[in-house]
Amino acid sequence: MLRAPYGEKNKMAINLKKPLKENIYAVPGIKLGFTEAGIKSKAKKDLAIILADEGSHVSAIFTKNQFLAAPVIQAKQNLKLGAKKKAFIINTGTANAGTGDLGLINAKQTCELVAKNFNLSAKDVLPFSTGVIMKHLPMQKIEQGIQALTSNLSNENWIEVAETIMTTDTIPKAYSKKIVLADEEIIVTGIAKGSGMINPNMATMLAFIATNASITSQILTKMITDVADESFNLISVDGDTSTNDSFLLISTNKTKVAISEEDDGNYQKLRDAILEIAKFLAQAIVRDGEGATKFIEIQVANGKTREDCVEIARKIANSPLVKTAFFASDPNLGRIMAAIGNAQVKDLETSKINIFLNNYLFAENGALSKDYDESIANEEMKKNEITLKIDLQNGLEVRSFYTSDLSYDYVKINAEYRT
Amino acid sequence: MLRAPYGEKNKMAINLKKPLKENIYAVPGIKLGFTEAGIKSKAKKDLAIILADEGSHVSAIFTKNQFLAAPVIQAKQNLKLGAKKKAFIINTGTANAGTGDLGLINAKQTCELVAKNFNLSAKDVLPFSTGVIMKHLPMQKIEQGIQALTSNLSNENWIEVAETIMTTDTIPKAYSKKIVLADEEIIVTGIAKGSGMINPNMATMLAFIATNASITSQILTKMITDVADESFNLISVDGDTSTNDSFLLISTNKTKVAISEEDDGNYQKLRDAILEIAKFLAQAIVRDGEGATKFIEIQVANGKTREDCVEIARKIANSPLVKTAFFASDPNLGRIMAAIGNAQVKDLETSKINIFLNNYLFAENGALSKDYDESIANEEMKKNEITLKIDLQNGLEVRSFYTSDLSYDYVKINAEYRT
Repeated sequence: MLRAPYGEKNKMAINLKKPLKENIYAVPGIKLGFTEAGIKSKAKKDLAIILADEGSHVSAIFTKNQFLAAPVIQAKQNLKLGAKKKAFIINTGTANAGTGDLGLINAKQTCELVAKNFNLSAKDVLPFSTGVIMKHLPMQKIEQGIQALTSNLSNENWIEVAETIMTTDTIPKAYSKKIVLADEEIIVTGIAKGSGMINPNMATMLAFIATNASITSQILTKMITDVADESFNLISVDGDTSTNDSFLLISTNKTKVAISEEDDGNYQKLRDAILEIAKFLAQAIVRDGEGATKFIEIQVANGKTREDCVEIARKIANSPLVKTAFFASDPNLGRIMAAIGNAQVKDLETSKINIFLNNYLFAENGALSKDYDESIANEEMKKNEITLKIDLQNGLEVRSFYTSDLSYDYVKINAEYRT
Repeated sequence: MLRAPYGEKNKMAINLKKPLKENIYAVPGIKLGFTEAGIKSKAKKDLAIILADEGSHVSAIFTKNQFLAAPVIQAKQNLKLGAKKKAFIINTGTANAGTGDLGLINAKQTCELVAKNFNLSAKDVLPFSTGVIMKHLPMQKIEQGIQALTSNLSNENWIEVAETIMTTDTIPKAYSKKIVLADEEIIVTGIAKGSGMINPNMATMLAFIATNASITSQILTKMITDVADESFNLISVDGDTSTNDSFLLISTNKTKVAISEEDDGNYQKLRDAILEIAKFLAQAIVRDGEGATKFIEIQVANGKTREDCVEIARKIANSPLVKTAFFASDPNLGRIMAAIGNAQVKDLETSKINIFLNNYLFAENGALSKDYDESIANEEMKKNEITLKIDLQNGLEVRSFYTSDLSYDYVKINAEYRT
């Protein structure tokens, strides 16, 4: 029998629990604060700040949604004035999206309030919001909250800030790693939020990763694209891309040796460390997907291009029929074929495609396997961790994409989100 | 206050009930048969035939899914041999898709069995299947079923055949109309099935429309595209396009006057009648959408192109977040904006967009209306018939698109479809 031709090295073993304080390392040059500003109706942490020392660099990737939230517009404007930023202010409770001119005024004023309270220039502040769309920022609460943040700063507050930025997330997402570059200790620490409205470009989420490594602003910009394409852009919960997605990469530039070229051997090492953090956060978002009962890796192999592999995986991941079949542990596997056929990948030869459910080959040469045994497929579908492997036999590219199933609870969570 | 600038003439008033026999007219030159062949596990009608008199023309549109079902491949091959077809055999219970060489052999043999039993040439038979993917046709049952069909033919069997081809549909879908062209009575009658796996190009469905009008094969081909683009290609239940979608238009050519040119005044009249049937069937499919509790018309107006309007409407229609908000009657209307922004329509000016929920203007110039009153929006969301009107203020095109909400029952139906 044919064997699935590729491995599972991209999948991170993630225990969906609150991370332990001792596993999340402080990043020299980064301080964090959080408070309950009363933006959310319930008494919850809802306003956070990340402060980076003078001389830090930042690069950012924002949502491709054409309806940009006000904080995204403001952050992009401020970034045009240079990559040296010092403060990142994040609120939950409202996304400040679809809020028109008043939303823009409020985003700008938020930056000014941070600048005033922390002795900065407003252009060195970037704002981020997440929550309900078409709801204004309560500016009085924001003002009081920002004042409160000044007295609650620490370089140890990563997990607390990860908690502060949660919306429908059930656990805070944080991950940390130490490597050595040129005899110096490099720390990379990241946090993220996201659970619904998750689809590549960007996944609906906020993610902040910081390192003490020294890296030029130009190379940092290259790095963030490299990393996003192989992490946050390879996940989907529900196919919806939000108005507020933002991924920020900060270097506090504390090491003596600076990475200034892409072909520097150290670039690759640092990239790998950052990518590991990003992959962890991306996959944790899917595992914590709204109503998710299963974690599904979709490996598409031997495609002509990366885009072909990703497009096929995304169609499968976003098919409500495939997702409900996974939820029910029903090997209604023809739906996977239908999804592949809907990807409209050029020059696809459907009669060459082999599909494996975990390691069970159920479709061979584009059709039901001759010795298909439903009872085996049924057993495989019952697992909570499923790898679907699609061998296109059409090229050399391979990509893994991550998604969750569609359960009653997804409907429940999203039907009742605001109540 | 701004008023929604356009009407609702495209929406058909549909009472989701089994049609009355007296409202569905026989089409001269068409006979239909049905039987219980035992393909479905329960005792249900599952095999039907439509027979067209010698000299009839047929045109067809098939799914754009790259994984073509065997009957679709066979039907396309037979159509290449000429537009004069005489028999259309339809089974439910299995889609005969993802079934490889054996599936093709079975589809071909089905045509041969029909040819043998009805004294036809196999190339004049087109096969259609709907049901579970990756399941073979039970050929012995098909053979016996086809024999049974020979003794159960009538030109009155439209509703029974509409029932026969149902899968998760809850009611049979049929509609009929009489018009007069050049002093002759023209009848147009159509049936369709479809409930889940519904998305344009084509909607997941089978539809058969027949008329006694005389129309050249070439003009019939033009007609079917015209009609499909403004009916079946403007609906979505779940964004999934199936492997088996087929829409067939048959003319039995019984009238003296023939329509042989597109600019013939009679072309337009006949087209309008056929389009009315097709719109009815398309909208009935959405109203009978799996788990649907609401019928939602999405009117996108003043777009630059038809494609812009349809793409925006489709993104809204296929957003799980929008669909669950409709299900919950929750005016979480920012999700509609996010969906518009995800359509990636060129040159969209988000700051010009006005959005109406029924006739209530909730978003003006791309942002929450200044006098937005949630209690009004809440009342509007509670209705079972909702029209969402999006004014792009960007051009002159307008299209209506139809969809349903995403309920617990959608998940239930699709999680348990095969059990």
